[in-house]
Amino acid sequence: MSTVSLPDDPEADPRVKQVFDDIRATRGSEFINLLWKYLAFDPPLLKQVWDDVKSVMAEPSALDSKTKEMIYVAVSIANSCSYCVHSHTAAARAKGMSDAEHADLLRVVSTASKTNALLNGLQVPVDPQFNRETG
Amino acid sequence: MSTVSLPDDPEADPRVKQVFDDIRATRGSEFINLLWKYLAFDPPLLKQVWDDVKSVMAEPSALDSKTKEMIYVAVSIANSCSYCVHSHTAAARAKGMSDAEHADLLRVVSTASKTNALLNGLQVPVDPQFNRETG
Amino acid sequence: MSTVSLPDDPEADPRVKQVFDDIRATRGSEFINLLWKYLAFDPPLLKQVWDDVKSVMAEPSALDSKTKEMIYVAVSIANSCSYCVHSHTAAARAKGMSDAEHADLLRVVSTASKTNALLNGLQVPVDPQFNRETG
Amino acid sequence: MSTVSLPDDPEADPRVKQVFDDIRATRGSEFINLLWKYLAFDPPLLKQVWDDVKSVMAEPSALDSKTKEMIYVAVSIANSCSYCVHSHTAAARAKGMSDAEHADLLRVVSTASKTNALLNGLQVPVDPQFNRETG
Amino acid sequence: MSTVSLPDDPEADPRVKQVFDDIRATRGSEFINLLWKYLAFDPPLLKQVWDDVKSVMAEPSALDSKTKEMIYVAVSIANSCSYCVHSHTAAARAKGMSDAEHADLLRVVSTASKTNALLNGLQVPVDPQFNRETG
Amino acid sequence: MSTVSLPDDPEADPRVKQVFDDIRATRGSEFINLLWKYLAFDPPLLKQVWDDVKSVMAEPSALDSKTKEMIYVAVSIANSCSYCVHSHTAAARAKGMSDAEHADLLRVVSTASKTNALLNGLQVPVDPQFNRETG
Repeated sequence: MSTVSLPDDPEADPRVKQVFDDIRATRGSEFINLLWKYLAFDPPLLKQVWDDVKSVMAEPSALDSKTKEMIYVAVSIANSCSYCVHSHTAAARAKGMSDAEHADLLRVVSTASKTNALLNGLQVPVDPQFNRETG
Repeated sequence: MSTVSLPDDPEADPRVKQVFDDIRATRGSEFINLLWKYLAFDPPLLKQVWDDVKSVMAEPSALDSKTKEMIYVAVSIANSCSYCVHSHTAAARAKGMSDAEHADLLRVVSTASKTNALLNGLQVPVDPQFNRETG
Repeated sequence: MSTVSLPDDPEADPRVKQVFDDIRATRGSEFINLLWKYLAFDPPLLKQVWDDVKSVMAEPSALDSKTKEMIYVAVSIANSCSYCVHSHTAAARAKGMSDAEHADLLRVVSTASKTNALLNGLQVPVDPQFNRETG
Repeated sequence: MSTVSLPDDPEADPRVKQVFDDIRATRGSEFINLLWKYLAFDPPLLKQVWDDVKSVMAEPSALDSKTKEMIYVAVSIANSCSYCVHSHTAAARAKGMSDAEHADLLRVVSTASKTNALLNGLQVPVDPQFNRETG
Repeated sequence: MSTVSLPDDPEADPRVKQVFDDIRATRGSEFINLLWKYLAFDPPLLKQVWDDVKSVMAEPSALDSKTKEMIYVAVSIANSCSYCVHSHTAAARAKGMSDAEHADLLRVVSTASKTNALLNGLQVPVDPQFNRETG
Repeated sequence: MSTVSLPDDPEADPRVKQVFDDIRATRGSEFINLLWKYLAFDPPLLKQVWDDVKSVMAEPSALDSKTKEMIYVAVSIANSCSYCVHSHTAAARAKGMSDAEHADLLRVVSTASKTNALLNGLQVPVDPQFNRETG
């Protein structure tokens, strides 16, 4: 149950078809996950989001793909986005994340959340040594 | 300005001194950042938090130290913990994170936050293909 | 599956009936959504929450009803409240939000979430020009 | 630096004076903290917020005042509201929270945040035994 | 549908059996809720999380068990962790939380969330009187 | 104190100058706020973020500019981004938001946060009537 209607035949709109074709080509797979199908309710939004995600996640950059997917999972956990946790955990596995790495990711995310709460409770001033410009 | 009092001479308490000594030995540095000094207001809590952070971040595990610090930064950003963002960005740099990797980290975290919001707004059902047990 | 029990016949309690009657009169509809039915487990809390929501959302104020419902959706997305996203998206539509406005709302919410994360990661100081009192 | 202007003489407005008098009478203190002074930029909002906080926090209810203030601190930590953490930690102390109780509060809040993240990462289905209606 | 596989016979691993036995002994109940069963996918993580939760929640400390469970619920609500809200509401009831206390808890959590948002919107400076060290 | 270094002369880099010129032209103002100056540490990230914000906020769309800025403020409050609350409240005022509309915005955001928490605590099932496809 979504807040928008899933289009009956999203690729009937050539703007949607173009994005879906690019998703398939970029991923080397016929599978289009539901996010993109629902986003087809507004083709310009679909295109803008896909272009953003593609440029950040699919193009070569300083970090490797597996690390980027694991960071994506970490953020999705903290933002409590169930769909995103599922889809990016699957993506991280597809990029090679092992069970041990998944457990380690969860260990870091949960411990970070613990100390985040502790610091927000303590309201400790930031050490001047952390200053990038002078520290 | 913290919600607890910074102890005048925290290492006068041997329980605190033991933790501080372990922090110094583990990090190979004399620097004790303010989090630990303020946490000394309750030595058992100080010890419990340090033991947890040390076991997750300082002991060898499936992920390397730099990646773990970057994931820590990602979570701290999402949880809006200013101190944690500063301290773990500094730690990630100390573990070798370059400016380009830092920019890439921010790129992934901000784009993940964008799609997290989008999915929370769309309430798209999770694809059965993401099911770890059957997918 | 809720954390409280749905009362069998909530309107048997006159305090509940009074609130439900006011909900029906205010909205001009017989439909009482489940939030209010579950809240009937504690009639004073039911009344306090309804009075608050009614005064903010149903009474004339500086902003029009459609805009207020869209802001409500934006907050509910950021707080990851699935029920609230569903109920207030439906309310915004009932107040006239078009598909194009819904897409625009999602576009603003997701881009705001992106730059929120970026700024929390960068920890940029606030420009003095934004100071309402001197800027 | 606030997003609204602090009124020069807020109590010149009788609607503000009435609320401030009630704050002083309810608390038995002349001290009006800055939240209320800034909120005086919009007297109806000031009154609505004070009435809500007063009815929840100052009137006798199932939970005692100290416990309610500690719960308030816990929520404020999780929502990363610096002002609220400071003001309600001070309020909890004024209601009798000891240093040991403060440390215990921080211990529970930080461990809860840890397992919250873990569960959001694992996406474990809810046990039917937790069902209030059938469990 | 979880992001990890539920082990077929988790207690076949003696590290898991040891933790499960401790859960049963600590709680005086045969019931092992699903969190722990899923966590068995990584026995060291299972043990670390259980040890942390046990030391904070099951051992005597400054706050009583019911209060600690209610604080846990408050944090879980703010972090939008559905599983945690269910499991710790059930735990708080098991420790004696009445319906009236549950309603009061929800009243405090929701009003705190309201003023948290208000303060984050107003960006009011913190009163110097709240300073623990000088105030 | 930021986590990145403010470049000494950011416009010495032609990629930065091009973006800054576009910011000035789009806004009809010489003022470049600090976010963009700090983002100049990584010109591609600067360009990607500006292009996204410009397309969403500065180009004509279904919603008017003032409404979009108010929605931006609402999200920034919920995500506890202090810089964003300041900059987008100033932007909303520049687009015509009155004091009364600002108060109304804060009223809606804070009441939404209250019911978001309440629903996350109650875990009420979503009414089938909210289903966009069948409701």
